[in-house]
Amino acid sequence: MRIYDIISHKRDGHELTDEEIRFFIDGYVKGEIKDYHASALLMAVYLNGMSDREMVTLTLEMAKSGDMLDLSMIDGITVDKHSTGGVGDKTTLIVTPVVASLGAKVAKMSGRGLGHTGGTVDKLESIDGFNVELSPDEFISTVKRTGICVVGQTGNLAPADKKLYALRDATATVGCMPLIASSIMSKKLAAGSQCIVLDVKYGSGAFMKTKADAEELSAKMVEIGKMAGRKMAAVISDMDTPLGKNIGNTLEITEAVETLRGQGSADLREVSLTLAANLISLARDIEYSEARQLCENVLDDGSAYKKFMEFISAQGGNAEMVADIRKLPVAKIIHRVIAPKSGYLSNTDAEKIGSASVILGAGRVNKEDSIDYTAGIILRKKKGDKITAGDVIAEFHTNDEKRITDAENVFFEAITFSEKLPEKTELIYKVIR
Amino acid sequence: MRIYDIISHKRDGHELTDEEIRFFIDGYVKGEIKDYHASALLMAVYLNGMSDREMVTLTLEMAKSGDMLDLSMIDGITVDKHSTGGVGDKTTLIVTPVVASLGAKVAKMSGRGLGHTGGTVDKLESIDGFNVELSPDEFISTVKRTGICVVGQTGNLAPADKKLYALRDATATVGCMPLIASSIMSKKLAAGSQCIVLDVKYGSGAFMKTKADAEELSAKMVEIGKMAGRKMAAVISDMDTPLGKNIGNTLEITEAVETLRGQGSADLREVSLTLAANLISLARDIEYSEARQLCENVLDDGSAYKKFMEFISAQGGNAEMVADIRKLPVAKIIHRVIAPKSGYLSNTDAEKIGSASVILGAGRVNKEDSIDYTAGIILRKKKGDKITAGDVIAEFHTNDEKRITDAENVFFEAITFSEKLPEKTELIYKVIR
Repeated sequence: MRIYDIISHKRDGHELTDEEIRFFIDGYVKGEIKDYHASALLMAVYLNGMSDREMVTLTLEMAKSGDMLDLSMIDGITVDKHSTGGVGDKTTLIVTPVVASLGAKVAKMSGRGLGHTGGTVDKLESIDGFNVELSPDEFISTVKRTGICVVGQTGNLAPADKKLYALRDATATVGCMPLIASSIMSKKLAAGSQCIVLDVKYGSGAFMKTKADAEELSAKMVEIGKMAGRKMAAVISDMDTPLGKNIGNTLEITEAVETLRGQGSADLREVSLTLAANLISLARDIEYSEARQLCENVLDDGSAYKKFMEFISAQGGNAEMVADIRKLPVAKIIHRVIAPKSGYLSNTDAEKIGSASVILGAGRVNKEDSIDYTAGIILRKKKGDKITAGDVIAEFHTNDEKRITDAENVFFEAITFSEKLPEKTELIYKVIR
Repeated sequence: MRIYDIISHKRDGHELTDEEIRFFIDGYVKGEIKDYHASALLMAVYLNGMSDREMVTLTLEMAKSGDMLDLSMIDGITVDKHSTGGVGDKTTLIVTPVVASLGAKVAKMSGRGLGHTGGTVDKLESIDGFNVELSPDEFISTVKRTGICVVGQTGNLAPADKKLYALRDATATVGCMPLIASSIMSKKLAAGSQCIVLDVKYGSGAFMKTKADAEELSAKMVEIGKMAGRKMAAVISDMDTPLGKNIGNTLEITEAVETLRGQGSADLREVSLTLAANLISLARDIEYSEARQLCENVLDDGSAYKKFMEFISAQGGNAEMVADIRKLPVAKIIHRVIAPKSGYLSNTDAEKIGSASVILGAGRVNKEDSIDYTAGIILRKKKGDKITAGDVIAEFHTNDEKRITDAENVFFEAITFSEKLPEKTELIYKVIR
């Protein structure tokens, strides 16, 4: 078998065989197949597509290219949740204690934020003492003990995907549906959980810009997971506008705690409950409505909040500080953004608001950038709110005064006003199972 | 400007700007743009194509990436001839002395053979003493003195093409019309001649397998040359069957000399005269028919033969040996291939006959292989000849007896017999100017 022929086949629009895909992934990880071969093949895949069978094989081969986590020592059903990334998306912090309160086991690897979207690992690290770098043994024993453990991605999870993703990122071959689906799912399959719920966002602040794209990606990922013997669901939700009101690491911990105490934003509560209920429905093999009721119960009766505190403590985080939100660190400068005119807030572009938050210090432009955990934005008004000129629309939190003007310019690009009440956003578009 | 965006544009089917193409070639030659970027872009070009403008710009940028030969010190009109490669194609050895006899100046760089096709440099080097490695000054002064000089390709002619061609060869992106056209023409433009005639072959032994492909490639190359201010013609000729009767280096020198003395095969004479007459027509700005008459005259009156001898001597070749063909070295073994049955010879597949000749030692499978100059094949019968079982169809010349069986097996795959006279091959399909 020669990589030249594999490239030719895909170039000419043929389906690759399982053996060809295996040969490619194996040779690429070993370095026998070069980046220049891989990028030619990726471009051919980008332009000529992949069948579902090719995509499933590619995913499994990438998953098998490194460690496959063995969660069999954990009693009970292991569950995982993955978001395609959004602005103000702190659902992991709410979903995981909810489902763990109901006996599901969350052994989760999370990522860091890049660009306008945040990452769960950064948010958790903003809690004094919280440790995301546990050994495999500590990881498993923490899940056994508390029902939740969230760590950063280890070095050897789907190394083929890591290498290929970096190449795609450099060669304009990221935005290709079967490649996106197999990239995400290879890591999820390697991470070992039996039930997986995907939170697939669409809109300006999401990787998928349209509902149609989000739906296509969801269907592909659910298909892959099922073919690999996992219980799967995908929730397709809006990311035209940020989720909840707080954006930034410490600020999002605060809002998650508020939600776990019954005071959070309605949209954040709804998306979190939909994700949690889908996980419980899969894990217990019960109807969604029944699972939903169970999730609402543990959220409302404080069990989930208690579980969250247990989770934070178990990984070394200062739970006392989290319990009393006033003890959390706050940025030195809080700048109020004032409405220049009256009307309804008709748009709050998630991508641009995410970018404004990055400018304030909350995120990274490049992987190696450091983060200001206390920086970010609190949206005092949300899309659809009626506003009078002079109202405070948002609060900017930062430790660097010089960043405020730039952030405000971007923020004002993000928002529009209208005379009429704007149409309501459909928060959850669809669930695919 | 970023290579990422250039790849995206071509991926999405857009035309690249001249600045983008320049940025790519410049950065790639400098090593700032990596092979993996280039191969993704090449695959996007392969699948989405290139406009004529993009192709012309690419050609000019590749030509300018290294030395541009300055032939302005040579008085008179400089002419060049390029063949896309064939089996038994020794036209350069005939065309160049014909046009030089008529005052055109041939300052030519030629290649070596690879695979089933031969190369002019190898053929000339099979003449005792012939030197193809002249300094630029010697090259120019030889053209000035005798009207012809043929050398091997120098190191820094269109280095961008050299680097890109090697990458295309590894990544299944060779067979793309605008890339083929720009690759050939970048070297021809850098080589500096004012008039260029292309001999574009089609058929089993050619790079272009069909007339339609040969015609498309010809039109593109003529377009590029004209846009760069050169006088251009392309002759599209048959390569389903070998040209002439001799294949192999010394054997082809012999047949060229025979043709220059008025005794060669009709097909070889016809293609050579068509190419020469097109060059003279361009160089002197006269009608083709007039140019053709002039070429026939110098071929028939011995002037071209005399010019050939002058050319061989000027580059150190043993002209005496060439003048008396019996003095040329001959292979130790001459094996007669016998017709197994009677009938008309209905096909003589050029690619397979070329391969049989390589097996006998006349060519290279890999670039670094050495060549047996005396090895090759003399076709005693050509397509359309009537044959009786037991007739000698061909002579194999080799110095290695062990190779004969393999060569004969491939040779017999190349030929077919029929009861009826086969349709005559159209030798020259078209001339594009």
